[in-house]
Amino acid sequence: MKMSEMGITVKKSENFSEWYTQTVLKSGLADYAPIKGCMIFREHSYAIWEKIQEIFNKQIKEKGHKNVYFPMFIPESFLKKEAEHFEGFVPEVAWITMGGNSKLEEKLAVRPTSETIMYATYAKWIRSWRDLPLKLNQWCNIVRWETRATKLFLRTREFLWQEGHTAHATKEEADTEVMEILNIYRDLVENYLAIPVLVGKKTENEKFAGALYTTAVEALMPDGKVLQMGTSHNLGQNFAKVFDIKFIGEDEKEHYVWQTSWGVSTRMIGALVMVHGDDKGLVLPPKITPVQAVIIPIFYKNVAQKLILEKAREILNKLVENGVTAVFDDRPAYTPGWKFNEWELKGVPIRIEIGPRDVKQKQLTLARRDTFERLAVKEEDIVDIVNKLLEEIQGNLFNRAKKFLEDNITTVKTYDEFKEALKNKGGFIRACWCSSPTCEEKIKEETGATIRIVPFEKEKPFSNCVYCGKEARDVVYFGRAY
Amino acid sequence: MKMSEMGITVKKSENFSEWYTQTVLKSGLADYAPIKGCMIFREHSYAIWEKIQEIFNKQIKEKGHKNVYFPMFIPESFLKKEAEHFEGFVPEVAWITMGGNSKLEEKLAVRPTSETIMYATYAKWIRSWRDLPLKLNQWCNIVRWETRATKLFLRTREFLWQEGHTAHATKEEADTEVMEILNIYRDLVENYLAIPVLVGKKTENEKFAGALYTTAVEALMPDGKVLQMGTSHNLGQNFAKVFDIKFIGEDEKEHYVWQTSWGVSTRMIGALVMVHGDDKGLVLPPKITPVQAVIIPIFYKNVAQKLILEKAREILNKLVENGVTAVFDDRPAYTPGWKFNEWELKGVPIRIEIGPRDVKQKQLTLARRDTFERLAVKEEDIVDIVNKLLEEIQGNLFNRAKKFLEDNITTVKTYDEFKEALKNKGGFIRACWCSSPTCEEKIKEETGATIRIVPFEKEKPFSNCVYCGKEARDVVYFGRAY
Repeated sequence: MKMSEMGITVKKSENFSEWYTQTVLKSGLADYAPIKGCMIFREHSYAIWEKIQEIFNKQIKEKGHKNVYFPMFIPESFLKKEAEHFEGFVPEVAWITMGGNSKLEEKLAVRPTSETIMYATYAKWIRSWRDLPLKLNQWCNIVRWETRATKLFLRTREFLWQEGHTAHATKEEADTEVMEILNIYRDLVENYLAIPVLVGKKTENEKFAGALYTTAVEALMPDGKVLQMGTSHNLGQNFAKVFDIKFIGEDEKEHYVWQTSWGVSTRMIGALVMVHGDDKGLVLPPKITPVQAVIIPIFYKNVAQKLILEKAREILNKLVENGVTAVFDDRPAYTPGWKFNEWELKGVPIRIEIGPRDVKQKQLTLARRDTFERLAVKEEDIVDIVNKLLEEIQGNLFNRAKKFLEDNITTVKTYDEFKEALKNKGGFIRACWCSSPTCEEKIKEETGATIRIVPFEKEKPFSNCVYCGKEARDVVYFGRAY
Repeated sequence: MKMSEMGITVKKSENFSEWYTQTVLKSGLADYAPIKGCMIFREHSYAIWEKIQEIFNKQIKEKGHKNVYFPMFIPESFLKKEAEHFEGFVPEVAWITMGGNSKLEEKLAVRPTSETIMYATYAKWIRSWRDLPLKLNQWCNIVRWETRATKLFLRTREFLWQEGHTAHATKEEADTEVMEILNIYRDLVENYLAIPVLVGKKTENEKFAGALYTTAVEALMPDGKVLQMGTSHNLGQNFAKVFDIKFIGEDEKEHYVWQTSWGVSTRMIGALVMVHGDDKGLVLPPKITPVQAVIIPIFYKNVAQKLILEKAREILNKLVENGVTAVFDDRPAYTPGWKFNEWELKGVPIRIEIGPRDVKQKQLTLARRDTFERLAVKEEDIVDIVNKLLEEIQGNLFNRAKKFLEDNITTVKTYDEFKEALKNKGGFIRACWCSSPTCEEKIKEETGATIRIVPFEKEKPFSNCVYCGKEARDVVYFGRAY
């Protein structure tokens, strides 16, 4: 690749979609697979995914969840057991019909989600109140046979996710579980990915196929569209009744369990790209990036080369010993200019340059990825300054995105204002709603916007229903979703 | 479950196969899935798998490998490109033929291994010597449509593994990579799983379909059968030529890359069960167990209950702070006797009992899982003693298995001795071989034994070929394999 081909050739503000694709490909996050509708998670995105796994595993394990792995094959008859669930998923199922040279007696779905296969087994495992709560989670690949155009991280036929599946003795315990997980998701997205979110409940139309109710974490993208970052469902006793998951309570009577399921997927990485990236490429928050600081040596014609390399290694060790994930880019085959571009594309928060003058003056030159600010730092202060900068960058990215989110929540009282805001600005539209599914559907048909969330803390209606003009019951947040 | 149903009802020495199944099921490692040929990795085995991932990731990342994720769908045409490879895998492939309601134009294999899908992409990524070496690894699910009876961890239609795939500029570099990984495998298996192994090369008959040569790590199970624990292949330029993976060298000429691939799978967990388990259940090596020590409080009718629980928590914190993965089993719904049985089934290396007398005497009672030895320990010494014991148990398990391995390598000079040893004892049969594939095949046909490895350091033949009686070229190790 020539250096001229390396950078992103469009501006984020001018051609967002093309900018996104180029950023994902050129930063080395991902690539298209040689199979229609599929993608390759390259090392840079997979390392981010490993970070997400590490953070999330720690939190759920502390709360007593355990990781497991269930088969990815789901017999058609299992999927069919819960009618709504089947209707919801069957148009997108990839079917295995042959094993070796033999036709299978019953075709098998590649899991689009694992409720049915897991709950068929929960029915066997759960006998008494002593077996509850059962709180399991799995990290796995998921298949949904998309026919729409592929969008890296956001819409591919195979993606990665975690799915949690719990069973409880009472509805209250299941409610608590749903919220506990939603809060972990919110913490992950806001405090690690630095993406501010709205949280709340989904409407009946928008809930998960088979759930009692669905809660969600929703984020706003720079093009004004909304991206669902994670969902946590109370499944009620719907699946328990279908799969006959019963337990003998302390009252010595038989009861159906109450269940929850919840998940986040690799689409979060797409949000990370969109929210923080700029015209030079990715900008990764320090708490989620695989590399926090890169050290780049600068020398010409071997002048001071040995001194510079030694100093760079010393700084590297100092940073690593103090918990900074730093790398030293000592590849001799590439120029400093090439390296600058590449690490900018990859979104590494801090670049540390060491040149002949730096060595002589016992200093280093730092560059921030988020603001491009450069500063000279005394060698002895490097660890403190880097740690301080990382914290600042994390905060700055979140605050920038938070301001954008707040600036793009538009309160409207009439349908004309609604359409106007959606057309000119996008974002979240805050409006009053009579709570009729018909109004919701009409709005979706006419504008493409759906109710993204109904806030947990009921807001007082400030107008009649934005669509039908009858009395409103809820203040809700609309948006056009990815 | 009643306590009488809890334990294993057969002896390992009397009905090994039934003992294995009961141990896997009753320890909570795994369960049969409600789909033919498939299994569920329950929390206990998945936690072991996470440990294996952690250990292996650390080692390969230190050597510059990166984790990635490629699609699990492989078009039939890709699989067909390397003829030997296709022949090797096609009888066991699960085929996806439908997406949603539409028949696919080309059927897709669920990956039985990922060489073809990955290398089609390597051809695009690799351009110059600067792009080499390329050292990628992925953790994923794998499908092979077994028609033989299911055996938990050892033979199921879906299992988990890691597969590494590297590309290099020269054969020498690929050779080095193959051995580097084989050594990591050996280290993992011997020093963490505490299972001694033989290492060496595979014969032409036994090598991986499409490889130049295959190396392997092989372990002996208590029933005298051999289990392949991991393989590391030099693929030569076979796949490079088929997938056209070329690079411009420093000499400015075009060359095909040299490739390696290597993998270990969840079958290792089956070996762990078989090698160390006993009539009470699993016995897990301290370096791989999810729980190293369990603290069990013992009180009757609430006497001293509060004191005991407080002390137990204090001991727990002390152990955890000092790096021991300890748990405190304070479940009120279960008796101490029940807990003893359950944790023995799960193979936890050390049990720590705290009863009224222990609290009074400022001591604790420890029980070793490997020897059932019990010892009273002063409270203040608990951390040191536990750490010392963990080391001892790790060593003891390895040494026990090592002695068994050594006792079950039988050197033979004639085919009669060969058959006799195989029939009476099993294990590894050390014999001389003329290196003709015909002799190898005849022996396999007549006895079921295959050449498991040809040692790297050539041993001097001590007889003629054990089958044909002609001059021998190699000393090799035969065995009946799982």
